[in-house]
Amino acid sequence: MPTAGPRSGDAIFANVERVNAELFTLTYGAIVRQLLTDLEEVEEVNKQLDQMGYNIGTRLIDEFLAKANISRCVDFKETAEMIAKVGFKMFLGVTASVTNWDIEGTCCSVVLEENPLVDFVELPDTCQGLYYCNVLCGVIRGALEMVSMKTEVTWVRDVLRGDDSYELQVKLLKQVPEEYPYKDDE
Amino acid sequence: MPTAGPRSGDAIFANVERVNAELFTLTYGAIVRQLLTDLEEVEEVNKQLDQMGYNIGTRLIDEFLAKANISRCVDFKETAEMIAKVGFKMFLGVTASVTNWDIEGTCCSVVLEENPLVDFVELPDTCQGLYYCNVLCGVIRGALEMVSMKTEVTWVRDVLRGDDSYELQVKLLKQVPEEYPYKDDE
Repeated sequence: MPTAGPRSGDAIFANVERVNAELFTLTYGAIVRQLLTDLEEVEEVNKQLDQMGYNIGTRLIDEFLAKANISRCVDFKETAEMIAKVGFKMFLGVTASVTNWDIEGTCCSVVLEENPLVDFVELPDTCQGLYYCNVLCGVIRGALEMVSMKTEVTWVRDVLRGDDSYELQVKLLKQVPEEYPYKDDE
Repeated sequence: MPTAGPRSGDAIFANVERVNAELFTLTYGAIVRQLLTDLEEVEEVNKQLDQMGYNIGTRLIDEFLAKANISRCVDFKETAEMIAKVGFKMFLGVTASVTNWDIEGTCCSVVLEENPLVDFVELPDTCQGLYYCNVLCGVIRGALEMVSMKTEVTWVRDVLRGDDSYELQVKLLKQVPEEYPYKDDE
């Protein structure tokens, strides 16, 4: 797999319009701060970030399918690899890897090598329990739901909470048969 | 001035890390929606977006000065050109132009040719009075304050409000003499 250096991704997705990563990071930080001010309970902030991510994911999947130039994934395993290798690269400019598959092939971990959402972020003690990047769980859940996969996406490890990396668990709950055939551009 | 096509900017700022513009657009949309839900008064949302932008601008100026590879601006006129030609390109991947200077050279308009913040955005009737992109006013105000220029930045025209383009007015209120010399990398 060719990579043009960390977070560049431009060589691979030349057709994708981009904005400055630091602007994005600070903008996302502004959301989290706003929610913490408004909602008081950290648990509620986690829920709201996940919901925001879900809404974003249901829209982003169109951009992904239109521009990633990939063929239909045959199963959940291939889908997970696609999220990690193509999706993260396309949207955040970082790569991720898939590990910890269960025997059934319905649950795995996505481990982020870098995470632009958290640049310059330090959580105060009052924010223990916050999943700062919870928007990512929602984005994956929302995007997969649009391609007929009901999933549960949760954080397993989080550097901001003292872990050594960012690890998301993606669990396939139900694969809904597609009711109408999409036309692929293949 | 070389441009590599609308919103690319990658050729000019190869050292700048980037994320997907649509992800940014949707994330910004999530903020505005959240504020509208939380704050009720549209006027309050405008104020909050401006304040968020201010906080972002005070941080982004460092990235700008570090990566734009420009020398110190001699006056407000040059500064305004730099914001329009280099700043918008670097952060949003779009270009803007400066017009409508007053005689004193302390007030001008910045007109955006494109505006990635508003892709897919339509305002419901209940949002009349909203300056959807007010974060941009705050960003410019915050960034300029860090280089000793007190400004007032307001929207003059806004396509979402029925105008034919996006036009910001930037008015220099006060130029504070710098109290300590910065070291340039010139």
